Amino acid sequence: MTLAFSLQRILEMLPAEVETVGDFSGNITGIASLGSAAAGDLSFLGNHKYRAQVAGSKASVILLPQDYSGEPASGQTYLKVARPSFALALICREIEQLLQPPPVPGIHPSAVVHPSATVSPEASIGPLCVVEAGAVVDAAAVLESQVHVGQHARIGSGARLFARVVVGDYCQIGPRNRLLPGCVIGSDGYGYEFLDGSYQRVPQVGNVVTAADVDIGANTTIDRARFGSTCIGAGTKIDNQVQIAHNVRIGQHCLLVAQVGISGSTEIGDGVVIGGQAGVAGHLHIGDGAMIAGAASIVKSVPPGSKMRGSPATEMVLQNRIIVLQRKLPELFKRFDQLEKPTESLA
Amino acid sequence: MTLAFSLQRILEMLPAEVETVGDFSGNITGIASLGSAAAGDLSFLGNHKYRAQVAGSKASVILLPQDYSGEPASGQTYLKVARPSFALALICREIEQLLQPPPVPGIHPSAVVHPSATVSPEASIGPLCVVEAGAVVDAAAVLESQVHVGQHARIGSGARLFARVVVGDYCQIGPRNRLLPGCVIGSDGYGYEFLDGSYQRVPQVGNVVTAADVDIGANTTIDRARFGSTCIGAGTKIDNQVQIAHNVRIGQHCLLVAQVGISGSTEIGDGVVIGGQAGVAGHLHIGDGAMIAGAASIVKSVPPGSKMRGSPATEMVLQNRIIVLQRKLPELFKRFDQLEKPTESLA
Amino acid sequence: MTLAFSLQRILEMLPAEVETVGDFSGNITGIASLGSAAAGDLSFLGNHKYRAQVAGSKASVILLPQDYSGEPASGQTYLKVARPSFALALICREIEQLLQPPPVPGIHPSAVVHPSATVSPEASIGPLCVVEAGAVVDAAAVLESQVHVGQHARIGSGARLFARVVVGDYCQIGPRNRLLPGCVIGSDGYGYEFLDGSYQRVPQVGNVVTAADVDIGANTTIDRARFGSTCIGAGTKIDNQVQIAHNVRIGQHCLLVAQVGISGSTEIGDGVVIGGQAGVAGHLHIGDGAMIAGAASIVKSVPPGSKMRGSPATEMVLQNRIIVLQRKLPELFKRFDQLEKPTESLA
Repeated sequence: MTLAFSLQRILEMLPAEVETVGDFSGNITGIASLGSAAAGDLSFLGNHKYRAQVAGSKASVILLPQDYSGEPASGQTYLKVARPSFALALICREIEQLLQPPPVPGIHPSAVVHPSATVSPEASIGPLCVVEAGAVVDAAAVLESQVHVGQHARIGSGARLFARVVVGDYCQIGPRNRLLPGCVIGSDGYGYEFLDGSYQRVPQVGNVVTAADVDIGANTTIDRARFGSTCIGAGTKIDNQVQIAHNVRIGQHCLLVAQVGISGSTEIGDGVVIGGQAGVAGHLHIGDGAMIAGAASIVKSVPPGSKMRGSPATEMVLQNRIIVLQRKLPELFKRFDQLEKPTESLA
Repeated sequence: MTLAFSLQRILEMLPAEVETVGDFSGNITGIASLGSAAAGDLSFLGNHKYRAQVAGSKASVILLPQDYSGEPASGQTYLKVARPSFALALICREIEQLLQPPPVPGIHPSAVVHPSATVSPEASIGPLCVVEAGAVVDAAAVLESQVHVGQHARIGSGARLFARVVVGDYCQIGPRNRLLPGCVIGSDGYGYEFLDGSYQRVPQVGNVVTAADVDIGANTTIDRARFGSTCIGAGTKIDNQVQIAHNVRIGQHCLLVAQVGISGSTEIGDGVVIGGQAGVAGHLHIGDGAMIAGAASIVKSVPPGSKMRGSPATEMVLQNRIIVLQRKLPELFKRFDQLEKPTESLA
Repeated sequence: MTLAFSLQRILEMLPAEVETVGDFSGNITGIASLGSAAAGDLSFLGNHKYRAQVAGSKASVILLPQDYSGEPASGQTYLKVARPSFALALICREIEQLLQPPPVPGIHPSAVVHPSATVSPEASIGPLCVVEAGAVVDAAAVLESQVHVGQHARIGSGARLFARVVVGDYCQIGPRNRLLPGCVIGSDGYGYEFLDGSYQRVPQVGNVVTAADVDIGANTTIDRARFGSTCIGAGTKIDNQVQIAHNVRIGQHCLLVAQVGISGSTEIGDGVVIGGQAGVAGHLHIGDGAMIAGAASIVKSVPPGSKMRGSPATEMVLQNRIIVLQRKLPELFKRFDQLEKPTESLA
């Protein structure tokens, strides 16, 4: 990508309250981290960890928090804003629109759309997509390429389905959802009954329903309900390779980081954050606002606002203490051996 | 979906031994859990945990175990059966057939089938599927949409491959297998030799062979053997996002829950159950009937019938004890500090 | 596959220094492990664990290390070589070429290639692939089937993309990369800012760049950078279902085993080995040559050459000791209870 934004143009993308310090007067031609930026680059301080790198950064323009006290070098400009990371996001939003112009509405001639499907004239159906019987694709939805939309499924307005997404029969995708490449919505739930020496499949006749503004990561899988719906609440953001089993209900504005697994029928409240590779067993309830650390295994229900860690998980404060003490076990056993000896000699 | 089954029609779907109590006399128009059911819904008690919800459930018909002692409300009917969960599965099987009628046999005009491939006239090849040279698709097999069947692969009779399944060259899929969307059967095994400063790939010239009645979950991956075959035994059910490495052999009637990983050349006996996110190292043997808890890491072979838990795993009884005692470590260290003091004062 | 190689033909595939002992004089018609081999099979001793199986093996030809001291049976031949496993790889390489002849160059008529894309006449674009505007496919690259190459992406010379691979817009795949089925390169990074009660997406305007000779496993996902590039170094081999977040940088000649997860902005040095299901938190640095055990959770940076294990991980020597002592906790608590009693009676 080639990029050339004047400082004036950058300021137009940001909220009004920006304190400008310095004398940079060229074009911004790239974005880079503090440590790797060169002249012409915009950079930012988004994580306190990197504060010491600001002074030496070669970036021409740096987005900084309002309390940053240093001075820019000659030919460099500091932009002090309430939230440097969000300010950068606003600039990147404009760059993204330049890089990825919205697709033209219409159906690519190589797509296979069933005559009984309903596709809005404002929707875009890319090459080699399949839209099955009775499916509905709402206005301004985009199916990028090689997407599969099953029978009687519905894709909400403004949703974007990237390459190779699968939406199974009868599933409903909410408005403005972003479904990243390879994710599978509405695969069969995993349910069997053991009978006469073998596992009999329990048919899964429910669906998956996602509310508005849900993002679903690449190669993530969300199973259809045994009956009723597997539900994802509004504004919830799911990362790559997450597995969500049948009849799970996830609330609003949750974050599920990569490789998390949620077992069947578990309910997750609003505003829950679950770290990467964590797992939650089935038929549990995770209260609103709970935070679950990466790699944790949750095997009991969790009250609202809890912070959990470990496998199996405990309250984080206890787990942190356990972790410290485990590392002292060699010392403890040694002290213990020494303690036993004199005691025995006393006997 | 709209659904209207009379009680009589429901009873026809169930085994003969049903005890009917109550006076419901309308149509069943939905299925719901005990807590969320409304009038017209069928519900069931499948997990003892929910027993207290039966009495207050608004469901019109409830499938219950034979020993359930309460009485239905007016206008409500209880059906007492040997296995409520399986009874529900029988009803759902009929619903599923209504929802997803079997595809018409034949090859969709958009599919790309190599002239040297053999496709049964009773098989159904959906839109945008690819069937490569020398492949064989047996009678009544269904390739839903955008499926890839590699050279000289074989798809057994009655197998169903959902959207975007990949079956690699030379692999053999058994009769009545269900391969869920996005799974990959027959990717290269992960094998390298380090030579002269870099990793040289070890070619993987074997295949994958699945026996009858195997289910494979969405986005699961099963690697082809270095030579010979990676084998999955009859009736084994594999959940989503499971990884099975080259030359693994899995027995009959096993359950592998989501996100499990099995490393190369490990052999798993019959009737083994492996919980979600568990991992098994390479070149091990897991005995018949072993149960491995979710999130466990198995680093040694496991005798038949073992129950294992933890990372690294131990026998479950020991691990459960360790988990309890870990949580007492803060208390132990405190008691220990106090114990040392008086002892030292005695010295 | 049917296979018939004379002993002479086998010897031609191997390096010169082979010590031949025995009198086998037929054709090699298969490859099998020591325990399962029959007459006509070639086998090998690649892992000391199986040494005792050599003497009883029915294989007609066995590749052995130079220090193996036993004698072959009548009609059997031992080939003693420096590296039996690598010798087998050389033989398998020839078999693989027989099994999977290189595809014919050219574009399959069912593929959808944008007029502004540049495809080398020596490249092979298989059925139902999509190559978007401005993309470049270099000489001798192979896109097997149903592959998606996004706008302005570049596929290096000799790269092989198996079925259903996705390479996102602007990503660059290095020469001779092997991308296994279903992997997704260049999905959006997972970045949000919480603002006014909901998560705002941080646009991800960077890309993914892989160097030469990188392998990427089935259904693995690698996210594009927030800005700049997510980078994979030369010769690094990534297994199935690995997740690599935005702005990660991985060095040369690393191994990442299946189901590993690397969080955003983490840097991994050269020659690092990460075992299956391990996770690395974000913004860390993993030093050159570090070895991380399977299922480990890395939450702090790791110096070069370290060996780490556990969740959260410690140096492996300490973790091994902790594991042993955890299993002695029941005994320790018992000894402790006994110790307290007499001590108290002394008080």
